Amino acid sequence: MNPEPFLQLDRVIHEKGRLAIMSLLAASPSLYYTDLRDTLRMTDGNVTAHLRTLVEAGYVAVTKSFEDGRAATTYALTPAGRRAFSEYIGFLEQIVALTRPPAP
Amino acid sequence: MNPEPFLQLDRVIHEKGRLAIMSLLAASPSLYYTDLRDTLRMTDGNVTAHLRTLVEAGYVAVTKSFEDGRAATTYALTPAGRRAFSEYIGFLEQIVALTRPPAP
Repeated sequence: MNPEPFLQLDRVIHEKGRLAIMSLLAASPSLYYTDLRDTLRMTDGNVTAHLRTLVEAGYVAVTKSFEDGRAATTYALTPAGRRAFSEYIGFLEQIVALTRPPAP
Repeated sequence: MNPEPFLQLDRVIHEKGRLAIMSLLAASPSLYYTDLRDTLRMTDGNVTAHLRTLVEAGYVAVTKSFEDGRAATTYALTPAGRRAFSEYIGFLEQIVALTRPPAP
C-alpha cells in the first residue's frame, strides 16, 4: 500500500475539531463565532483554541465588526486555507479508495 | 451541516500514524512488525507506541512466534478493530461527501 496519502495528511487540519471547523467554513463564505461553536457543540475554550491554530496557520481569517452596535466576530477560509483543505480532502478520498476497494 | 460524522470519529484511529497502520492491517490477514515500520517509514519508537495503543484499545492482536529459529512478531486486526475501522472509514466517506457536493 502506498503510504503517501497518510504521510501527506496536514496535521493542522487532521485534528477532528479543526477538521469540523474547516469543513463548516468551506461550505460558507463566512460564519459567526457563535454559529461555529453551537453547530459543532464545542466549548468556548475548545473552539477558540482551534480557531487560533487555524488563524496562525494562515488558513482562517477573522473579521471583527459592529452590527447594530454589537460586536460581531466572523471567520472565513483564506485562499491558502481553501487550497489546503481541498488537498486534505483529496487525501481522504485516496484513503477511502485504498481501504474500500470497489467490488469486482 | 450535520456535525455527527466529525463528533463520531474514533480518536484512537484518527491519529494519522494509527490510521496508516489500521489501513495496512485492514488490507492483510496479518503483517510483520518490520513490514509495518518499513512501509510506513516510521521510527521504531513511533510504530511501537502506536501499536501499543491499538492493542490496548482491543483493535489489534499481536502474535509472537519462531520462524526458522528466529523470533517473529506479527500484528492483525481483531474483529472489533475491523468493525471500528470500517465504521471510521464510513464517517470519512460522509465527510468527503459533505465537503465535496456532487456537481449539479
